[in-house]
Amino acid sequence: MTDAPDSVAGMEPTPYDPSAVSHLLGALAYAQLSGFGELAAGAQLSPHLAAKGAIAGMAASVYRQFAAVSGRLTALGETPEAAMAPFVEAIDAFHARTAPSDWLEALIKAYVGHGIARDFYAELVNYVDGDTREFVLTLLEDSGQARFISETVREEIADDKRLGGRLALWARRIMGEALQQAQLVAGESDALTELLVGGEHGADLAEFGRIFGRIADAHTRRMERLGLSA
Amino acid sequence: MTDAPDSVAGMEPTPYDPSAVSHLLGALAYAQLSGFGELAAGAQLSPHLAAKGAIAGMAASVYRQFAAVSGRLTALGETPEAAMAPFVEAIDAFHARTAPSDWLEALIKAYVGHGIARDFYAELVNYVDGDTREFVLTLLEDSGQARFISETVREEIADDKRLGGRLALWARRIMGEALQQAQLVAGESDALTELLVGGEHGADLAEFGRIFGRIADAHTRRMERLGLSA
Repeated sequence: MTDAPDSVAGMEPTPYDPSAVSHLLGALAYAQLSGFGELAAGAQLSPHLAAKGAIAGMAASVYRQFAAVSGRLTALGETPEAAMAPFVEAIDAFHARTAPSDWLEALIKAYVGHGIARDFYAELVNYVDGDTREFVLTLLEDSGQARFISETVREEIADDKRLGGRLALWARRIMGEALQQAQLVAGESDALTELLVGGEHGADLAEFGRIFGRIADAHTRRMERLGLSA
Repeated sequence: MTDAPDSVAGMEPTPYDPSAVSHLLGALAYAQLSGFGELAAGAQLSPHLAAKGAIAGMAASVYRQFAAVSGRLTALGETPEAAMAPFVEAIDAFHARTAPSDWLEALIKAYVGHGIARDFYAELVNYVDGDTREFVLTLLEDSGQARFISETVREEIADDKRLGGRLALWARRIMGEALQQAQLVAGESDALTELLVGGEHGADLAEFGRIFGRIADAHTRRMERLGLSA
């Protein structure tokens, strides 16, 4: 758009605060590093060796995603630890408030948490460069884990209505905490907040509402796939 | 050796109880699945994000080894869970008796435990088929983790003699528990015991003593590399 009326020759407008990318990747990296630990702990809670192995495999796959994001931060000249640091407190607080008491709660947390995280980062990358967008969207594609979780949960609740009720409540709690955490994470970084709620190329306040509306709708559809009421 | 005096034409002697291979791989698989969980928990104890990421990476790499052994069991027509089951109690008991209280204890445990496990399985595979031997030896090659651990531990104890003393004691305890566990693991399976202590092609009792002597010597050399007295 070199002929856009408000562009000045030789001075392309910055589409977004460049630090937004390192903040976005830093938040994502720590979400994955801590998600790895949560899933690994969930594997320890499993009553069967098969489930233990499967959940450990999910944890290992989340670790690979963390390693990919770390590598990208390094390639961009950032120190992964420095990029993650601002988000540690908010993400740790989320995990502290949502410690699973058994392996099924751990699975539901992984399913709900990963779904919301994917939707949240997919919204954020709408406003950054195409390379970063492509990288994040490819990274967060589901690699069959959601299917394993939904099959396992459906099987476990099939004969136990009370369990289904308890897990539906648990999923609602995770959803509430995760949305609150997503806002805290965005709030830790002016650049991220701007991506979501304003700035020349960021989303405006009405769009902000629509974003969380879309995330909530997607959550409801995922709950139906689990066989749980949202 | 077709002209060996005690061979009977058309009746090659079975070199070992064939179930020894599935027992060996089953014990190894569960050692890795539980080692994954231990390392992942150790990552959670790390005070720095860099160490947390590095230890999580070791856990993910141990998971990949578990997945490789599982895959091999499946290819041999075995169910990995059934092959692991006899060894769960002994290995879980080892971990319960050696729960690390901080990240450095977790690192020392990984270092000592992996070293002893590697030596132990390397001795066991002396008596099984070449394919299994090659598979296990390649799998247990060190992938640079020992170096990360020894550098980290040397750095941490450089200015703190008391810490060095505490970690040396801890390493001795792990060594004692691991040797005891190795005997319990072998004891869970007649086929494995035979590989170690007797049977036509297994090690005899004197060899058994030499095996544990070699494992202890290798442990002493590893402790020196950590800068700890054995």
